[in-house]
Amino acid sequence: MPCFLPIPADHPFPIQNLPYGVFSAREKGPRVGVAIGDYVLDLSVLSEAGLLPSYGVFAEPSLNAFIASGRDFWNEVRATLQYLLDEETTTLSGNRRLRTRALIPVQELTMHLPVAVGDYTDFYSSKQHAINVGTMFRDKNNPLLPNWLHLPVAYHGRASSLVVSGAPIRRPRGQTKRPEAATPGFGPSLELDFELEIGYFVGQGNTLGEPISVTDAQQHLFGLVLVNDWSARDLQRWEYVPLGPFLAKNFSTSISPWVVPMAALQPFRVAGPKQDPPPLPYLSDGQDCAYDIALEIKLQTAAMANAYTISRTNFKEMYWSMNQQLAHHTVTGCNLRPGDLLASGTLSGAEKNSYGSLLELAWGGKEPLELPNGERRSFLEDGDTVILTGYAQGDGYRIGLGEVRGTIVSAPS
Amino acid sequence: MPCFLPIPADHPFPIQNLPYGVFSAREKGPRVGVAIGDYVLDLSVLSEAGLLPSYGVFAEPSLNAFIASGRDFWNEVRATLQYLLDEETTTLSGNRRLRTRALIPVQELTMHLPVAVGDYTDFYSSKQHAINVGTMFRDKNNPLLPNWLHLPVAYHGRASSLVVSGAPIRRPRGQTKRPEAATPGFGPSLELDFELEIGYFVGQGNTLGEPISVTDAQQHLFGLVLVNDWSARDLQRWEYVPLGPFLAKNFSTSISPWVVPMAALQPFRVAGPKQDPPPLPYLSDGQDCAYDIALEIKLQTAAMANAYTISRTNFKEMYWSMNQQLAHHTVTGCNLRPGDLLASGTLSGAEKNSYGSLLELAWGGKEPLELPNGERRSFLEDGDTVILTGYAQGDGYRIGLGEVRGTIVSAPS
Repeated sequence: MPCFLPIPADHPFPIQNLPYGVFSAREKGPRVGVAIGDYVLDLSVLSEAGLLPSYGVFAEPSLNAFIASGRDFWNEVRATLQYLLDEETTTLSGNRRLRTRALIPVQELTMHLPVAVGDYTDFYSSKQHAINVGTMFRDKNNPLLPNWLHLPVAYHGRASSLVVSGAPIRRPRGQTKRPEAATPGFGPSLELDFELEIGYFVGQGNTLGEPISVTDAQQHLFGLVLVNDWSARDLQRWEYVPLGPFLAKNFSTSISPWVVPMAALQPFRVAGPKQDPPPLPYLSDGQDCAYDIALEIKLQTAAMANAYTISRTNFKEMYWSMNQQLAHHTVTGCNLRPGDLLASGTLSGAEKNSYGSLLELAWGGKEPLELPNGERRSFLEDGDTVILTGYAQGDGYRIGLGEVRGTIVSAPS
Repeated sequence: MPCFLPIPADHPFPIQNLPYGVFSAREKGPRVGVAIGDYVLDLSVLSEAGLLPSYGVFAEPSLNAFIASGRDFWNEVRATLQYLLDEETTTLSGNRRLRTRALIPVQELTMHLPVAVGDYTDFYSSKQHAINVGTMFRDKNNPLLPNWLHLPVAYHGRASSLVVSGAPIRRPRGQTKRPEAATPGFGPSLELDFELEIGYFVGQGNTLGEPISVTDAQQHLFGLVLVNDWSARDLQRWEYVPLGPFLAKNFSTSISPWVVPMAALQPFRVAGPKQDPPPLPYLSDGQDCAYDIALEIKLQTAAMANAYTISRTNFKEMYWSMNQQLAHHTVTGCNLRPGDLLASGTLSGAEKNSYGSLLELAWGGKEPLELPNGERRSFLEDGDTVILTGYAQGDGYRIGLGEVRGTIVSAPS
């Protein structure tokens, strides 16, 4: 199904992708669009023109109403868009006035947070990440805590401070205690870090008291984004016992603006890592439920002309699948709502150059990361920009997640 | 300022209180009301009649729009309501038709969750509770973790599963591991517990990146409710390392339906506990910032004719004040939004009969609670009803928080 717009084979947003986002442009406020090549297709315009149903859903400043409309509606919209963008369809391509109104070049866009997130949950589902953290901070001979291989550990995150790619990240201040100090102190975090994660939005939710089974879980997913779970390691170390991370994570979490629908990712389903011991029945899932998505972390300091790739890994290595995460999250009866965000936790591959945080890449400051211009990093400095990207490689096309980027700005004085 | 309705001196809802809630009655959907004696005053009716401004705010199914309208508006509404309810004012009392429409007996009401909560944060701010838990599970000679006296420990809770008083509490199922077992198992929680807490709603929020100072914090509070943070202790023990409680708390959290405005509680401000060591400057607050509110826990098993008081304590004993909690929460720049809910954590007094959870009252099952009919409880059983109540005692009147109640129903089969 070639698109009537020319789109290179390595472009993140071909006709097979069609990720949803919320943008403003041309002096009109936030509304729903789909990325196609270097354009956004304004769904509110298509709907107004009678080419898509339910105008109200696309004129909204978030995807929530669209997500809540359900899977049949998503499928109908996606099929209609692929038809309209096909090179053999002239409805849009042959209507110059409509085309000019509906297709807006990316340079003209301001992107917004795509979803108004009710609750945000962050998992801890990369085995290598858990091993790395356990090795550094607990016991290198026994790095995984006893529960880790039996359930997908998670915590509730902060929804209010989710921001869209490009938002500046202000270095947080907070309370920390240096190991050698007798008492805690207060000041800007000196151990600011990123975390490479994949996030996914819940489509259909569940009623309080009615769990989602692991076999049904896939039907409850809407789509994926990249997540940078910025973390202040020094705040985290001091505050996190016994109730988990709080201020160390709640100052900002960045997500990519384009939500890639699960429908676009079905060709990339693969078997996940072998699970040993086998999980309890409520977490046991015979399906191929991992996704082959290549991920990359780039860093650009204020002194560098270009961003430099510091890590590459793959989403398919995540130990606990999204299906298992959803089933576990709801097994008590906890209700998920359309638009809730769940994230993977830091995704670290097996090799050092595939780790998902600077904490791991620089091994807690013991092996600072060497950058090509001679700079070194144990943690992020003001002016550093972190860019996370990812894509699934198809036969002659890519399903890209786009990118999530953020630049560190200095702490308030 | 006597009210034209007769209200006994020990009634929770006199004219000095005027708590806000969301109710439905008389075949009309959810809207905003104020409790006065054994009636609710329908603010949408008063507003429609031109006696209150901003009809839209009161016809809403949550208090969010009212809360977001700001302190000046709350003050104006409160003053108007106290005027209209005064025995010397005949606007309402003398207008039989309006009075019948606007004052609805409590027996006719269905109460709803008063606020659509964006984010819910739970603190851990009772020193005795932290000492009790530390003594039982860690080290009786050194029960407080090193950070506890330096900062108000907290975690992000689950907003979607907040429910209003009266909602049944379904016993959750989940993964647990008995100390003697080699591997974890799955089934209904066998250690279901309650937690007595006070919750408070944020009024005016803050912009991401701009902390609220401890001295300004009081201006950001809207009002208080009672909170029962239901907890599955066996799930919690197995899952909580290293990221804190997750499923153990997310199956339901109950709150009382009436939000008592801070304005009604100003006469009850008192000095909080002495803090030693003194907190860091960003947490240092010279104000009297504790509130003298008597709290009570009642338990009624299926076999009991009446509820029995199992604990009494006071909110003024909370170690970290609401001001300090707000300042700490936002010191990194984390943004709070109008209607966000923050809660105290389990409130336990110094004596055994003042503890705030069954875990503590029955000392982890070692000293089961003896009930007057001969029953014993280490944890909650199906059919048990827990009722939390509280009030501030004024001179000839009470500011009551009403109650939050919930009955345990059996786990899904």
